[in-house]
Amino acid sequence: MPKTRQQNQNSLYLSPVITIVIISILSPLSLAAQPSKFRRAPRFVGKLPHLTEPPQRQQRQQQQQYRYETRYFEQRLDHFSFADLPTFSQRYLINTDHWVGPNRLGPIFLYCGNEGDIEWFAVNSGFVWDIAPRFGAMLVFPEHRYYGESMPYGSREVAYQNATTLSYLTAEQALADFAVFITNLKQNLSAEASPVVLFGGSYGGMLAAWMRLKYPHIAIGALASSAPILQFEDIVPPETFYNIVSSDFKRESASCFNTIKESWGELVSVGQKENGLLELTKTFHLCRTEDLADWLESAYSYLAMVDYPYPSDFMMPLPGYPIREVCKKIDNAPDATSILERIFEGVSVYYNYTGNVDCFQLDDDPHGLDGWNWQACTEMVMPMSSSRDKSMFPAYDYNYSSFKEECWNDFNVIPRPRWITTEFGGHDIKSVLKLFGSNIIFSNGLLDPWSGGSVLQNLSETIVALVTEEGAHHLDLRPSTNEDPDWLKKQRETEIKLIEGWIDNYYRGKKATFNM
Amino acid sequence: MPKTRQQNQNSLYLSPVITIVIISILSPLSLAAQPSKFRRAPRFVGKLPHLTEPPQRQQRQQQQQYRYETRYFEQRLDHFSFADLPTFSQRYLINTDHWVGPNRLGPIFLYCGNEGDIEWFAVNSGFVWDIAPRFGAMLVFPEHRYYGESMPYGSREVAYQNATTLSYLTAEQALADFAVFITNLKQNLSAEASPVVLFGGSYGGMLAAWMRLKYPHIAIGALASSAPILQFEDIVPPETFYNIVSSDFKRESASCFNTIKESWGELVSVGQKENGLLELTKTFHLCRTEDLADWLESAYSYLAMVDYPYPSDFMMPLPGYPIREVCKKIDNAPDATSILERIFEGVSVYYNYTGNVDCFQLDDDPHGLDGWNWQACTEMVMPMSSSRDKSMFPAYDYNYSSFKEECWNDFNVIPRPRWITTEFGGHDIKSVLKLFGSNIIFSNGLLDPWSGGSVLQNLSETIVALVTEEGAHHLDLRPSTNEDPDWLKKQRETEIKLIEGWIDNYYRGKKATFNM
Repeated sequence: MPKTRQQNQNSLYLSPVITIVIISILSPLSLAAQPSKFRRAPRFVGKLPHLTEPPQRQQRQQQQQYRYETRYFEQRLDHFSFADLPTFSQRYLINTDHWVGPNRLGPIFLYCGNEGDIEWFAVNSGFVWDIAPRFGAMLVFPEHRYYGESMPYGSREVAYQNATTLSYLTAEQALADFAVFITNLKQNLSAEASPVVLFGGSYGGMLAAWMRLKYPHIAIGALASSAPILQFEDIVPPETFYNIVSSDFKRESASCFNTIKESWGELVSVGQKENGLLELTKTFHLCRTEDLADWLESAYSYLAMVDYPYPSDFMMPLPGYPIREVCKKIDNAPDATSILERIFEGVSVYYNYTGNVDCFQLDDDPHGLDGWNWQACTEMVMPMSSSRDKSMFPAYDYNYSSFKEECWNDFNVIPRPRWITTEFGGHDIKSVLKLFGSNIIFSNGLLDPWSGGSVLQNLSETIVALVTEEGAHHLDLRPSTNEDPDWLKKQRETEIKLIEGWIDNYYRGKKATFNM
Repeated sequence: MPKTRQQNQNSLYLSPVITIVIISILSPLSLAAQPSKFRRAPRFVGKLPHLTEPPQRQQRQQQQQYRYETRYFEQRLDHFSFADLPTFSQRYLINTDHWVGPNRLGPIFLYCGNEGDIEWFAVNSGFVWDIAPRFGAMLVFPEHRYYGESMPYGSREVAYQNATTLSYLTAEQALADFAVFITNLKQNLSAEASPVVLFGGSYGGMLAAWMRLKYPHIAIGALASSAPILQFEDIVPPETFYNIVSSDFKRESASCFNTIKESWGELVSVGQKENGLLELTKTFHLCRTEDLADWLESAYSYLAMVDYPYPSDFMMPLPGYPIREVCKKIDNAPDATSILERIFEGVSVYYNYTGNVDCFQLDDDPHGLDGWNWQACTEMVMPMSSSRDKSMFPAYDYNYSSFKEECWNDFNVIPRPRWITTEFGGHDIKSVLKLFGSNIIFSNGLLDPWSGGSVLQNLSETIVALVTEEGAHHLDLRPSTNEDPDWLKKQRETEIKLIEGWIDNYYRGKKATFNM
């Protein structure tokens, strides 16, 4: 039985949360119904459906593996003004099974909820569950405002109604939510002296790093996994992301890279022929004509993010090193196979590894009022280009004006492209943090296209980078498995040692104070 | 000719910005017309008139001494949301006479404008003017939103209309104003690589310290003079402030302390007699019946703040060590002089040192919609008590409930007494900042009643406390004079050395990066 669209979206939802779409550059190729769509600039788009509940299968898994209580905490909508706004209910998950309690200053591990349902992040962050017993730690997972159940104005419908209701969906407000939440929780538990350690992956990793920098009195350290805090303005070249995706394919097979690079022209040629759209629909087994280029581009980018060394089911059920499998299909098709047929065979590894899908129904609303789309159109302005030489995608130069125009059309909002670096820094980060701040781990896998916008060098003795050649998007935060390669085990052991160091240091400081 | 009320207010305006009023405890004594007023709880009140222009005399002085250009910068009203609000024009003063320019990475000294007209702070922060040539530094003085000319909604009248229009008057917004402003200014001057050093006194010192902690990428260090960042919640005992005021009097004369301590009861007795109010009005040369206890209390607190070692004209024209002079008047009156007459003679040193005032017209609207009153009723909740033994003021225990009620009555706003420590920290500051942050000087004079809520110990190698036994409220920020005692010269030299160290270190880092 073919999956329904809803199910497909559920799976997509389980994706690494940050993705990107090149649309306008592919405009001649696009197959969607509204031609206006194709004039849009590329933008940073979380193409994630906004479901509040994780898929059934995931829920079952989670109930087996991880137990937590679900609670709610009342938050101000705007922490930084006294405007008379309604409060909202922030959901959080909590597990105290291994906590040694306030008297023994039991640590609190706080996962910085990012742009999605917190239950899904909780069950996909096995690392913190794995290490909690060793640390005698409590686990808390506060949900990010405007995601999952943590909806201002009482419902998603109202919260996402327009720019006014959405206007409090910002990273600074989310960080303040965490700060107020954990301060309150600790007080209620008489655990004011318990050290808090932050965890987060992707945008959640950015939040964890920023939170440690902005709220050092609240958390003693942060593990920021795959956190592209430098993917702003001109800090890293805008080609970085797509160059890495492309090199992930190239390292598996130069011919695979070339086939994909050629395929875009081929898509245009075929699309422009008489009955060309129909032909493409058939070749790609689409249920109806769709935004094909976008769909392909998404697949490649996600594949690069989840190019994990063992089979996983993070976004889609996939084999280990899935790019290798995709390229095998593309390269090893019989000689007579056309470029586009090869492409179809390749991406089927991503979209249909289980073979259950008869025809593909692509996302028909990539620019809907999605939370991450809003964030991308306001604060999270990450310039993205596609280079002429190193990228397998069609060349494209980032154009802020059209990006801005698109955001205005979508949300009636004007982006603030320089705000994130003003508020959180980023330029010249090594000089700035060499003598400021402490206790942050930036972990990255170099296969992850987001690694290019992250911190890959130690910034000081205690703000360190852990880089794995073969790692992908926040692989270290996933649960340990029997198939973990040694370098991954080693990475996690280093992380544990560093966190132990932070906590020991904190305890020593407390002891010194008591003895004073 | 007697001074007009307006002139008197002008002078008061030149006060150290933070003061406090005990009203309800003195309720039987109060002489004001509306009896409802006296049921109010004590609160943290900036009793400063809201004039936008400094007094004529000051203006003349400033034109002689300090030259600056006045400019304006457009700011968002809410940096942390995308609500569609009007922008406002932030005033700033700038002097580039000594700046060595962007190519030589000339430093930028930024004074964090606090709760008043920025021109007044600029001309009363002689220290930064004095040292600018030595550093080849530019000076900028951005004004704090909702003060001086930097009014949201186009006018003070609208900005101060109600809780909704006032709601963006918060410290976090002000810090973000500074961050956006300086980032923009540096870009316009191609001076992105110029180091910024922050300065501030009193609340401005709090802003400077917090800014260095929250925006290390924007400023390399901060001189936070008389910044009571620990005067929140239970971090320091609530009696601290009045105990210090009182001990400032006691150290000059125990009998002076005792006379003042006795005077409150005497005020009550006299006030309750038939024609008692009239008698008090006569004794204190009031133009009409007024809130006398409040007026006296203000005088004592301000005197403690400006107990400078040489004659000054900061708030009022005053002799050096003015408390000594006040106590002389109180102690040395002829034997037959009554307690209240002695008190009158004493406070006349403060209110009428020049002898020009015939009768006193006290502030008749201490709870008006003043900016600092708003801040005190929202974020800047600083609990204040008056102890039974060590204080010369009537005993009083801080009562949050009545404080809250009063804020509700005054502003229709509910305070957030735990917000400042959640946002900026404060508890356990030594542990938190021992291994986090750098380059902050907390300078304090122990005569200053605000020193009790400030940082008086080194927190780390680079977050240091400079404490002077004989100093008062941000004395170090005042211009050097021929009468400066050695300890003050030494303090300033240490500050200069530390700032030089920050800048040298920054340049070394830059050089290392260039050579890489």
